[in-house]
Amino acid sequence: MFPQEIDAMLLLRRCHSLTRLGSLGPQRCKAASPLASLAARLCSSRREDQRSSQHVNNSASWKTVVAGLLTGTGAVLAYTLHHQKVERADAGLPSEAKSSPLPVFNYDEVTKHRSLEDGIWVTYKGGVYDITEFVAMHPGGNKILLAAGGALEPFWALYAVHDQEYVLEILSQYKVGELSVEDQKKQENTKASDPYASDPERHPVLRVNCKKPFNAEPPSEILTESYITPHVFFFKRNRLPVPQVDTASYRLQVEGLSGGELSLSLEDLKTQFPKHTVTAAMQCAGNRRSDMNNIKEVQGLNWGVSAIGNAKWGGARLRDVLLAAGFGPEVAKWARHVHFEGLDKDVTGTAYGTSIPISKAISEEGDVLLAYEMNGEDLPPDHGFPLRVVVPGVVGARNVKWLGRIVISAEESASHCQQHDYKGFSPGTDWSKVDPKSAPAIQELPIQSAITVPADGAVIDRSEVTLTVKGYAWSGGGREVVRVDVSLDGGNTWQVAQLRNGDEGETAEPSPPPGRAWAWKLWELTAPLPPQAEELEIICKAVDNSYNVQPDTILPIWNLRGLLNNAWHRVKVRVRED
Amino acid sequence: MFPQEIDAMLLLRRCHSLTRLGSLGPQRCKAASPLASLAARLCSSRREDQRSSQHVNNSASWKTVVAGLLTGTGAVLAYTLHHQKVERADAGLPSEAKSSPLPVFNYDEVTKHRSLEDGIWVTYKGGVYDITEFVAMHPGGNKILLAAGGALEPFWALYAVHDQEYVLEILSQYKVGELSVEDQKKQENTKASDPYASDPERHPVLRVNCKKPFNAEPPSEILTESYITPHVFFFKRNRLPVPQVDTASYRLQVEGLSGGELSLSLEDLKTQFPKHTVTAAMQCAGNRRSDMNNIKEVQGLNWGVSAIGNAKWGGARLRDVLLAAGFGPEVAKWARHVHFEGLDKDVTGTAYGTSIPISKAISEEGDVLLAYEMNGEDLPPDHGFPLRVVVPGVVGARNVKWLGRIVISAEESASHCQQHDYKGFSPGTDWSKVDPKSAPAIQELPIQSAITVPADGAVIDRSEVTLTVKGYAWSGGGREVVRVDVSLDGGNTWQVAQLRNGDEGETAEPSPPPGRAWAWKLWELTAPLPPQAEELEIICKAVDNSYNVQPDTILPIWNLRGLLNNAWHRVKVRVRED
Repeated sequence: MFPQEIDAMLLLRRCHSLTRLGSLGPQRCKAASPLASLAARLCSSRREDQRSSQHVNNSASWKTVVAGLLTGTGAVLAYTLHHQKVERADAGLPSEAKSSPLPVFNYDEVTKHRSLEDGIWVTYKGGVYDITEFVAMHPGGNKILLAAGGALEPFWALYAVHDQEYVLEILSQYKVGELSVEDQKKQENTKASDPYASDPERHPVLRVNCKKPFNAEPPSEILTESYITPHVFFFKRNRLPVPQVDTASYRLQVEGLSGGELSLSLEDLKTQFPKHTVTAAMQCAGNRRSDMNNIKEVQGLNWGVSAIGNAKWGGARLRDVLLAAGFGPEVAKWARHVHFEGLDKDVTGTAYGTSIPISKAISEEGDVLLAYEMNGEDLPPDHGFPLRVVVPGVVGARNVKWLGRIVISAEESASHCQQHDYKGFSPGTDWSKVDPKSAPAIQELPIQSAITVPADGAVIDRSEVTLTVKGYAWSGGGREVVRVDVSLDGGNTWQVAQLRNGDEGETAEPSPPPGRAWAWKLWELTAPLPPQAEELEIICKAVDNSYNVQPDTILPIWNLRGLLNNAWHRVKVRVRED
Repeated sequence: MFPQEIDAMLLLRRCHSLTRLGSLGPQRCKAASPLASLAARLCSSRREDQRSSQHVNNSASWKTVVAGLLTGTGAVLAYTLHHQKVERADAGLPSEAKSSPLPVFNYDEVTKHRSLEDGIWVTYKGGVYDITEFVAMHPGGNKILLAAGGALEPFWALYAVHDQEYVLEILSQYKVGELSVEDQKKQENTKASDPYASDPERHPVLRVNCKKPFNAEPPSEILTESYITPHVFFFKRNRLPVPQVDTASYRLQVEGLSGGELSLSLEDLKTQFPKHTVTAAMQCAGNRRSDMNNIKEVQGLNWGVSAIGNAKWGGARLRDVLLAAGFGPEVAKWARHVHFEGLDKDVTGTAYGTSIPISKAISEEGDVLLAYEMNGEDLPPDHGFPLRVVVPGVVGARNVKWLGRIVISAEESASHCQQHDYKGFSPGTDWSKVDPKSAPAIQELPIQSAITVPADGAVIDRSEVTLTVKGYAWSGGGREVVRVDVSLDGGNTWQVAQLRNGDEGETAEPSPPPGRAWAWKLWELTAPLPPQAEELEIICKAVDNSYNVQPDTILPIWNLRGLLNNAWHRVKVRVRED
């Protein structure tokens, strides 16, 4: 889940920069929520609305908007329509009114405006803004109230996407005065430090999808160079600054059982429970989103094919910890889900949270770990130090990092991440029709594979007698990849690739028991370079041991969040004549 | 598995009737084994061979053939080449030699030829045949020796596919004499009765794919009329005559454990173990083969979309029986598979056999039943009376009927069905390249759906305002179907169908726990008839809760056995103007 705050600002950005949508680079964080996209849709239809203003003045529409104010959707609608009103009102104002000098306020005066009754005021770089009207339209909800009566800067530092021209543009509409010079100086002296300042160093080779919070993936050609992905190259998917955890005071809380809560130190986890290691791939549901985005725009970070990695995780079994906490036949009668909460709490104190079915959590064959090691070393900060849950075979989003709390429950997590995000919808479902309740939260992922070598657009010399194609393949739910088919001619003919589950020249890992193939497989095909072709369309598609296969094309699995892209992966290479 | 005998004869048929291949109707049983198809391939290249006879005389080829004689492949090669030799030899014989009267033999003389040393003789309708040379070429292996020294009729009655013109054609080449009139009369008096005479009556509505053994499916429009498929409409997949089982003497043997074997009567199974009921769909791996066959020829019974059904099975849990037989932690250390053997033994005494992983068999959540009831009544004879194993979520072939024996083992079943048949291969794999060891035995099936209404080719009146499309959807491994997308325009746009897991107007079954969705779902979409279209291409595709989807097209999942066709299902209907 992206913080709702980000959604809000991205909504604004999108409404103000429709013409720039096409040029969004990978360095910009893209909105992740239905709200933002609904806004985009509404914004897209604005031009028509502007032409026929009766749409805007239609009182029935306004009633709908007002009725919806308490809901996120209402907020977006309200924002969009309100914005049009502001624009028209501006247009009608005499120019001297617009340029009249604004009053100067003391900080004390600003701090009095912290409620809807007294008005919501904020400051930003010496300006004073009355955002009362905007609060209900803030798609991020009332988190915006946390800034009431004070400076926006520390919050915008946390949610770095606010730092965009068009966000300022919107803010400017609410300007009501200037902060006194004296108070401006005071604010500068107490300027919030960058909350991301303590984030760890990352390797510059990573392709950054979003800097703050940090989201990045390795170049695909590095990805399959090793069967075990080194942590530096393992994709990073953060939602907030990396929490700084003091291991001495760290405690994992296990709750929801009648015997009270269990509180475990890191040492307890390491000494009271047997250590297990599991080699498991982990994949973001948004892996390969960029290809889906290229077909038809979707919402979310623009991941390439490398939002996946394969690591050796070490830790206590979740099962063992749940049993120690009192899980037994009585609990089994009512318990249906296990919730996980991270220590990466947002400004409202809401932790990143999600849940998995109890059957997966408690099963001996489920291999769910409370991992304190990655590839034989302490978990790195970007991957959840000191503890993360590793749910093999299940979407990355459930593998909560910086794990602070486990709750056994009869209900699924009520979090945004569980209930609204990370669900798949029909290609025919747009933001106006989407009903999050109609789809289950993604748990197990479908069969997947991608080509990592050669890169799309690569040029091959005709003198090369053979062509080597490499990639990875993996399936969720512990289903083992049993075959990868590769085509060099756009799918007309297929050859079977060599699979391996270890590094070349090293002893492969033993075959996993049925239903517990958590690791990926690397694959490779060396075949004669087709003699005539000037361009090759190389395709891969994998099959798992349930004989599920990847679909041929992206459009029929397209979905508004750009999740679950597991269509055949295609790269084109050009053959250069000698 | 088809009996190898059938493979053999189909091989012969194919070699002798190349031009007729295209016209094989659904009433004819089609060959199911790699051998038969290899033969077809070899036969297809025969014409070229005939043109250049040095191919045939090439001694290196012959050495290969002789070396391969002990293997099935060798037998086929040998047959093909030998047959050419016979043809040429025939062509070179003086005509008087061909028309010379053959000697008359007594039956006593025939019975002396029962070994390769003495020659293998058989009789058929008064003729005496020396088939010694043919034995090694019989793709069905040495089962043919069972007929040595006696009449072929009883065996051909069992494997009814022998009753074809070209089989007789081949046999005629081996004729060495006539049976004495006296012995012919004796044989007629002891004529074998039809081994299928005791097969149960079947409903004439069934679409018969093969009469003996009986293989049939209901018309698709009946299939989705009820959530629970009545046994009369449930597809039948038999490999031999239906065994006549005496329930008084019936015993289920459970073997492989150190404590000796457990022998259970039907009464024991009903009284010593709690009865469980499971609603589970069962699907043949060859379901929808006809569509694959239409794209590019495959081997196997030409099933439509109805080789699937959904029933309420009642019986003892396999788990409970295995525990009673002594399964425990010690056994768990070495046991990896559970074998099942039917009572439908072929003439060599070989039972139909297969196996499933022990993890599925012993798991509480696996819900594997030793079922004695189907839809609340005793199992019908066609469905395994008195006992069959029901392995929910797993391919039909593992749901052994007329169950006689269970063996716990460290190894997978060595049966033909497990090791050679029911495996999936790459579309690029042909019979010359296929390596059965390279693919796992099919267990869990992939996501599947099909349209049952309207029928392909149906005509709809323009006056119909709406169109209703119906079908079924199911996924293997207990993965629940969460969505079915339907397109009325060849995949350009998609609508979401209504799913149900019960009959209309009745209380639906409760939602299954995660990973235990064994039953199918019926689905329905009623949508406006597209106003302009003269022809509609209706498509359905389903999604399960692992978010696996069906592939777009058949060709990329084509495989030489025509298994696992789960591509989007398409039907075309015409719109008639008023």
